[in-house]
Amino acid sequence: MEIKEYINQNKDRFIEELFSLIRIPSISSQSEHKGDMVKCANRWKELIIASGADKCEIMPTKGNPVVYGEKFLSKDYPTVMVYGHYDVMPVDPISEWKTKPFEPIVKDDYIWARGADDDKGQSFMQAKAFEYMVKSGKLKCNVKFMLEGEEEIGSGSLYDFCKENKELLKADIILVSDTGMIAADVPSITVGLRGLGYIEVKVTATKCDLHSGIYGGSVANPINVLCQMISQLTDENNHVTVPDFYKEVIELSADERKLMAKAPFSEKAYLEETGATELHGEKGYTTIERTGIRPSLDVCGIWGGYTEEGAKTIIPATASAKISFRLVPDQDYTVIIERVSNYIKKIAPSCVKVEVKPLHGGYSYVSPLDMPAYKAAEKAFTKTYGKQPIPTREGGSIPIVAGFERILGTKSILMGFGLGSDAIHSPNENYPLQQFFNGIETVSYFYEEYAQIMKK
Amino acid sequence: MEIKEYINQNKDRFIEELFSLIRIPSISSQSEHKGDMVKCANRWKELIIASGADKCEIMPTKGNPVVYGEKFLSKDYPTVMVYGHYDVMPVDPISEWKTKPFEPIVKDDYIWARGADDDKGQSFMQAKAFEYMVKSGKLKCNVKFMLEGEEEIGSGSLYDFCKENKELLKADIILVSDTGMIAADVPSITVGLRGLGYIEVKVTATKCDLHSGIYGGSVANPINVLCQMISQLTDENNHVTVPDFYKEVIELSADERKLMAKAPFSEKAYLEETGATELHGEKGYTTIERTGIRPSLDVCGIWGGYTEEGAKTIIPATASAKISFRLVPDQDYTVIIERVSNYIKKIAPSCVKVEVKPLHGGYSYVSPLDMPAYKAAEKAFTKTYGKQPIPTREGGSIPIVAGFERILGTKSILMGFGLGSDAIHSPNENYPLQQFFNGIETVSYFYEEYAQIMKK
Repeated sequence: MEIKEYINQNKDRFIEELFSLIRIPSISSQSEHKGDMVKCANRWKELIIASGADKCEIMPTKGNPVVYGEKFLSKDYPTVMVYGHYDVMPVDPISEWKTKPFEPIVKDDYIWARGADDDKGQSFMQAKAFEYMVKSGKLKCNVKFMLEGEEEIGSGSLYDFCKENKELLKADIILVSDTGMIAADVPSITVGLRGLGYIEVKVTATKCDLHSGIYGGSVANPINVLCQMISQLTDENNHVTVPDFYKEVIELSADERKLMAKAPFSEKAYLEETGATELHGEKGYTTIERTGIRPSLDVCGIWGGYTEEGAKTIIPATASAKISFRLVPDQDYTVIIERVSNYIKKIAPSCVKVEVKPLHGGYSYVSPLDMPAYKAAEKAFTKTYGKQPIPTREGGSIPIVAGFERILGTKSILMGFGLGSDAIHSPNENYPLQQFFNGIETVSYFYEEYAQIMKK
Repeated sequence: MEIKEYINQNKDRFIEELFSLIRIPSISSQSEHKGDMVKCANRWKELIIASGADKCEIMPTKGNPVVYGEKFLSKDYPTVMVYGHYDVMPVDPISEWKTKPFEPIVKDDYIWARGADDDKGQSFMQAKAFEYMVKSGKLKCNVKFMLEGEEEIGSGSLYDFCKENKELLKADIILVSDTGMIAADVPSITVGLRGLGYIEVKVTATKCDLHSGIYGGSVANPINVLCQMISQLTDENNHVTVPDFYKEVIELSADERKLMAKAPFSEKAYLEETGATELHGEKGYTTIERTGIRPSLDVCGIWGGYTEEGAKTIIPATASAKISFRLVPDQDYTVIIERVSNYIKKIAPSCVKVEVKPLHGGYSYVSPLDMPAYKAAEKAFTKTYGKQPIPTREGGSIPIVAGFERILGTKSILMGFGLGSDAIHSPNENYPLQQFFNGIETVSYFYEEYAQIMKK
C-alpha cells in the first residue's frame, strides 16, 4: 500500500490518537501540571510501541522525563533519531480562545487546540510516518525516538540527559519536526535557527506601595524607571544598544543576502497574518533578514502596580519585566545574557535597586545544504509538494538542536510543516489537516531517500 | 464629664463600633463589592442615629448611596457639615498583609485593617466627637453628616448629588477628617490639596500574541513602544515634558517658599518611612515643595504579555498602563487630561494603535488661614497637643473638597489625624489608637471654639 492510501485509510485513527495526547495539558512552565507531564509521557510510550517500536521507556531526568523508544533493524542501516517534545506553552489569555485549548476539535479541516502544531501535531506525524514504514516493510533505517518535556522552558534537563546517554543516543542524523514552511504551497526547510537568551528584571524603589498623592513627585517610581531603562535598550533605528551585543554576529556577504532575498515575501500577507500596521525592525535589514540573520530584543512581559479594574492611586514598590533576545551564529547566549545584565545594572539610576535573573537560553544552529540528510529531505519535499523546497533561516529557537551538535556531535535536519497562521504560543493554535497528512507523507519519503543516499 | 474621661470610659465600645464598619469590605472600585457598599451605608446610618442625630437616611445616587444625617438645634447656631467616605481601597497585594484586611485587630496600640485610617477610622472620630457634644449638652452647632461611597474612585456620583441637594447641604463649613498630620507630636492642618487626573493607556501592535522567535525583530512590540512613550513623559530633571503641563501652575514667591521650608522635614525619617534609597523628584524643588506645590506624574500600574511563572517567548499584542498626575492650583484636570492624552497620541509611533481613556479627576483646593474654621481648628489642635498646628499643603487629593467649593460655595476645614506610617492604600494599613482618641478630643474642641468664634 502506498503512503497516500495508508493515510487515507487510517486518518480517523491518527487524529484520535493525536487528540489523546493533546487532551493532556502538559504545560511545562507551570508547576501545577507536573502530573500531566508524566501522564503525557506515558501516553506517548503507548503510542510509540503501537506504531511499531521494539521497545519504549520513560527515562527519568532531573526534570520531566524523556520518552525513549527504538527500532533496530540492521547495523548496516543508517540510524535516524526522531526528536520532539511533548510539553506545550501556557494558554493565557484564555478568554481569547474560541475553543477549549485542551479539548481538540477538527473544524474547517483544521485541528484547533494547544499543541495542535507545536509540537504534538508535528511530532505525531513522525510517529505515523514511522508506523507506515514499519508496517509496509519499507523501513531501511534504524529509528530512535527521543521526546522531551521541557522544550518550551529551555530543555534544561535534556543537556545532562544527552551527556549521560551518548551511546544510547548515537545516530547519523536527528530528525525534527518543530519548525514551519513558508506557505502551504511553498515548501521550505529550515537551515538556520536563532539562539535565545531570556532574563527577568526587577526594579525596587521603596519598601511598600505608596499613596501617589502623598508621595507622588518625591520618590522614584519603579515603573517609570523600568520604562526608561527598557527604552534605553534600543535606539531610534531599532538597534540594540547593549555594548558588544552584535560583536560576534556573523555578517552575511552581499551575495548571501541576495540569495536570501529570493525567498518569496509578501508584505501584505505578512501584515495580514500578524495584524501589524507596518513592517518594523532594525534599520538596514529586510524582514527576512531581521528574523533570520539578525538578533533581536523583545520584552515578553511587564507588570507592576495596580492592574485591575478602576483607578488606584499608588506608586508601586516594584516593577518587573521578562526580556528575551534572539541570537544568531556565533552569539553565545551566556555571554550575551551577561552583557545585557551588566548593561541593565549600569543604566539603572541610583534611586532604585535592580535584580536581573537569567531564566533560560540556547545556542543558534546552522544546517549545511550539502549534508546527505538535507539532500534526502529536499527530495522528499519535492515528491510531496511537486516543487523544490527553499532553504530558510527561521527566527525561532530550538536551543537543544545546537545542544545535540555540541554534546552528541550529531547534526539535525528540520522537516517542519507549521504555517505562520498556526498561532503557536498564542490563543487558537491550529494545524491544517493537509499539513499533518503531508508531513506524514514527506517524512516517509525521507526515510526511503535517506536510506538510499546513505547506502551509496 | 470632660471629653478625655468620656473617651476613656467608652473606648472599648468606640473600637467595637468602628470594627463593625471595617468588617464590611466596601471596596468601591470592584463591582463584586456592590452589596457591601449598601451594607456599610446601613451600618453607618445605625451608628449616626445612635450617636445622637435627629435623623439619618440612605439617599440614592447614580452610584453608591450617600448616608445623610443631621441634628438641628437652633437657627442661631452655625452649621457644620461633616464629610467622610465609607468606601475603601482594594487590598492587593493580599500576600503582603500580616493580618486579614477586613478582620480588624488592635495590636501594640494600633488598629490594623483596611480602612483603619482611610477613612473609616477618621470619619468615625467625627461621629464620636459629635456623640460627646450631644450627650454632654455642650453642642452649640447644628451638625450634618454626609458620607459617600465613591471617594476612592473619584466621587463620581457626589457631584450631581450636591447639585441636586444644595439646600439640604447648606452649611457654614464642611469638616473633613481624611488627611494627615506631620507627625504624632507635630500637629498640622492641611490647607492645600493637590488635584488629580487619571488615565489608562493601551497600545496595540498586532492582532494576537506572536512567537517572539518567529517574529522577534520584524514587528513592533507594544511593551517596548509603551516603555518608550512613558519614558518620554518626563525628562532627565524629572520635569513633565507634556507641552503646557505647567502653564497654569501658580508659582510661589520666594517668601512663601521660605515659610514652607520652616515645616520640619527629616530626610532620614522620610527615607525610612518609604524605604527609598534617596530623595527623588523635580529638579529645583524640595521634597515638601514637590508634594505640596508642584504637579507630578506617576505610572500607577503597567501590564502586558506573559507575567506568570517561567519564560514564555511571546511578543504580546497589547500593553497597558494606568497613569496619574497630581495637580496644583490653578491646573484644571480636564484640560491637563486632554493635554496629556494629545501628547501621548502625538508621540505614539505609526507602528501601533494607542487608546487613551480618562478614568477620573479632581480639582485642587486651598483653604485660607484667616477663615473662622481655621482659627477654631488651630485652637482645638493647640488644646489637645499643647502646640500650635503648622499649616501644610498635602500631596494627596480629595477632589470633592474642591467640588464642594464650586457647587455648594462652602469651604472645608481639613482636620486630619493620619500619620505617614499608616500605610493607607497599601498592605497593613493601620491607625494608632492615640491618634484616634486625640482626633475625637480635638474635634470636640473644634465644635466649642467654632461656636464661640461664629457667635461674635
